[in-house]
Amino acid sequence: MARIEPRTLKGFRDYLPEAMIPREALIETARRVYRSYGFVPIDTPALEYAEILTGKGGEESDKQLYRFLDHGGRDVALRFDLTVPLARFVAQHANELGLPFKRYHVGPVWRGENTQRGRYREFLQCDFDTIGSESLVSDVEMVLVIHDLMRAIGFEAFVIRVNNRKLLNGVLQKLEVGDRAPAVLRAVDKLGKLDRAAVEAEIVREAGTSAEQARLVLEFATLRSSSGGEQERVLEVLEPHVRGNELAELGLDELHQVVGGARDAGVSAGHVRVDVSIARGLDYYTGTVVETSLTDPEGASIGSVCSGGRYDDLASLYTAQRLPGVGASLGLDRLLTAMEELGLVARRGSTAPVFLAYFEAARLGDYLRLASDLRATGLGVELYPEPRKLGAQLKYADRRGFPLALVVGESEWAANRAQVKDLGSGASASVPLRGADGGPSPELLAALAPR
Amino acid sequence: MARIEPRTLKGFRDYLPEAMIPREALIETARRVYRSYGFVPIDTPALEYAEILTGKGGEESDKQLYRFLDHGGRDVALRFDLTVPLARFVAQHANELGLPFKRYHVGPVWRGENTQRGRYREFLQCDFDTIGSESLVSDVEMVLVIHDLMRAIGFEAFVIRVNNRKLLNGVLQKLEVGDRAPAVLRAVDKLGKLDRAAVEAEIVREAGTSAEQARLVLEFATLRSSSGGEQERVLEVLEPHVRGNELAELGLDELHQVVGGARDAGVSAGHVRVDVSIARGLDYYTGTVVETSLTDPEGASIGSVCSGGRYDDLASLYTAQRLPGVGASLGLDRLLTAMEELGLVARRGSTAPVFLAYFEAARLGDYLRLASDLRATGLGVELYPEPRKLGAQLKYADRRGFPLALVVGESEWAANRAQVKDLGSGASASVPLRGADGGPSPELLAALAPR
Repeated sequence: MARIEPRTLKGFRDYLPEAMIPREALIETARRVYRSYGFVPIDTPALEYAEILTGKGGEESDKQLYRFLDHGGRDVALRFDLTVPLARFVAQHANELGLPFKRYHVGPVWRGENTQRGRYREFLQCDFDTIGSESLVSDVEMVLVIHDLMRAIGFEAFVIRVNNRKLLNGVLQKLEVGDRAPAVLRAVDKLGKLDRAAVEAEIVREAGTSAEQARLVLEFATLRSSSGGEQERVLEVLEPHVRGNELAELGLDELHQVVGGARDAGVSAGHVRVDVSIARGLDYYTGTVVETSLTDPEGASIGSVCSGGRYDDLASLYTAQRLPGVGASLGLDRLLTAMEELGLVARRGSTAPVFLAYFEAARLGDYLRLASDLRATGLGVELYPEPRKLGAQLKYADRRGFPLALVVGESEWAANRAQVKDLGSGASASVPLRGADGGPSPELLAALAPR
Repeated sequence: MARIEPRTLKGFRDYLPEAMIPREALIETARRVYRSYGFVPIDTPALEYAEILTGKGGEESDKQLYRFLDHGGRDVALRFDLTVPLARFVAQHANELGLPFKRYHVGPVWRGENTQRGRYREFLQCDFDTIGSESLVSDVEMVLVIHDLMRAIGFEAFVIRVNNRKLLNGVLQKLEVGDRAPAVLRAVDKLGKLDRAAVEAEIVREAGTSAEQARLVLEFATLRSSSGGEQERVLEVLEPHVRGNELAELGLDELHQVVGGARDAGVSAGHVRVDVSIARGLDYYTGTVVETSLTDPEGASIGSVCSGGRYDDLASLYTAQRLPGVGASLGLDRLLTAMEELGLVARRGSTAPVFLAYFEAARLGDYLRLASDLRATGLGVELYPEPRKLGAQLKYADRRGFPLALVVGESEWAANRAQVKDLGSGASASVPLRGADGGPSPELLAALAPR
């Protein structure tokens, strides 16, 4: 028979269990944190009318769309993010949803990107947004969600950098380059990558400012705290730069409230930092903007793992109703990379903590019952399906990364004993198999308890 | 500005929170049960080379494929199930995976079906399979997983119907219609929908059997227990019908072992039933086959909510390695329908149990801190983002379906008290706000504890 070569498309990838287990765990952690703030899940179709998706994304994302005619001749495309579908969704269901509406959404998106840049053409997004309120409480909450999430994952050395687009735009107005804000901010966004002189030259070249204007822009953009404990001082330092411009003053006041709200909620000062160099793209955001980075040496080069901000009007393409909102997006792939580099991920191919060897064929019923009884106590148990030699089974268990193996041979069945093997250390303990009530003995349960 | 009408494609749907919350909970339950047996998660791309997907599905699924040329001119398509991608995946990664390989996979699939049949063109599948072992232990485990899952969801009145394709095919051989097995079984599959005489006529007409052969086929196919407690008797009744045909005898022996294994593991007799009328499609399965249905009046018409079986060779299109396996697929949509009909789903638009009203604007820092302190104890708390009138906030909380509201006004802040309102009954209790350690008081935590 002619065989078909098993392969995935360029830019697409399979997730093997060793990669999928931590990914699932990370998504579950994110969901748990989102829910603890009252965010609710939604889902939308992968395929949408192309006109819905091409409306907003801009030329770059239009070019990357997976777009085709369906069976009914409709012009359709795969979604390239979860924000455009959210806008369509809220516009379509506004009456049923009620406002404010706090949603999270986890799902794949597709972009026909150039894979030479190390990008994948299919990746998972994991967003949360509060729609329909202009209150800064929702901005504070975005910071709190990111903070709780980072800690729930196991990160301690991280910082959420906060800025405000009104502050930036107002200061640019003051410097009389407000009309060239996009080009200026595009250059400022490169501050982490290029040195200051290069960014200054780029502002002059790309935005057509004077050298003095470019210098003043950078003087402002680099006003940030060197340590985490001085947010109040940083905000004071910004004060003279904004004075006299209403928009900048408003932005600074908002920044004050967001940083203060996070502190009031108990976030330690080291985890939130004002950083006026953060612009986060060009058109979309209108108020608070945030980026999150790891601060230990292993994580510092990974870039922002969670970014977002406030926007004035989510769905103007689809509805006359003005829908302001604020939200952020988790960088799942970057987070997983960081978790691996920091040793927060156990690379293992098992989900159950206990491996139960099956090697007395005639005892199958007993093995099945034992596994069921252990599962009924909440313990995950994988029973090997074939009565092979113990050594082969333990090799399988070891390869899969099971922490514990439970071994019950004929003599043990007869004597009501069980061996619990620690597959990490190789240590082995013999304990009673069943207790007085006929169920797994307390000693067995203690020996198998997760550490 | 010209607006775009916000709408979804025909055959596609949005999940609003009221529908998505129980769907997420159901998937989490399934994952938890799968993991408790050692199944591990994988993921594969939504898009595959079309040749991978068209290889196996047959004409019907080829016609329903969402297929197009991508940016690089590749002939690609959206997957229509999770089984073909599993076959491709196992063939491609066999060396890394090791056998036996027990995987689960939850993900969307797409079929351009006729929506007039009430079908959706995008739906979620939730499969589990054990690849690489011929041991019937894996067949037993499939039954146990379904059993545990149904009970974990909250169903008690259900039955897992078990049959064996070797038994069916052997009996058809004995009746000298083995060469027409597909047409015969297609008719037998209709036994639940058509009456016996109609099915008998269809066998004669479609498979070209004699009337006597059709009668004998149906005599066999309707040999099943009327009550759940008589599996051993049913197996005895089948005995004379299989005698002399090796394949049928083997099938009956396997059926014995699967039903016996489930009983040994502690499954009550009422939850597993031999049903020799179950054929489960035509080409794919080669041994054990199962269907699961609800037995109470509200659920009986819903059809099989979890079906599967054993197959000899998963990936012959992609590899020379023979890969037998056994597994099943959850009918998520049917299960959700059944859960609703049986009242197992609370239709609510909230994920956090506690709604915290915010109506003393000057106390924002205190509200933020209180919410954080409660979340730190593991309690989900949604803080309303705007200091609106209490009535409007409670209306929002009620509409969202929050069970409890926490109300702290200025006099309460001053007196260190809090009001806990039960939004179901309308009852209200006043408790101390903070305890001696400065955290939420034990009385407050008790009043907010999930019931």
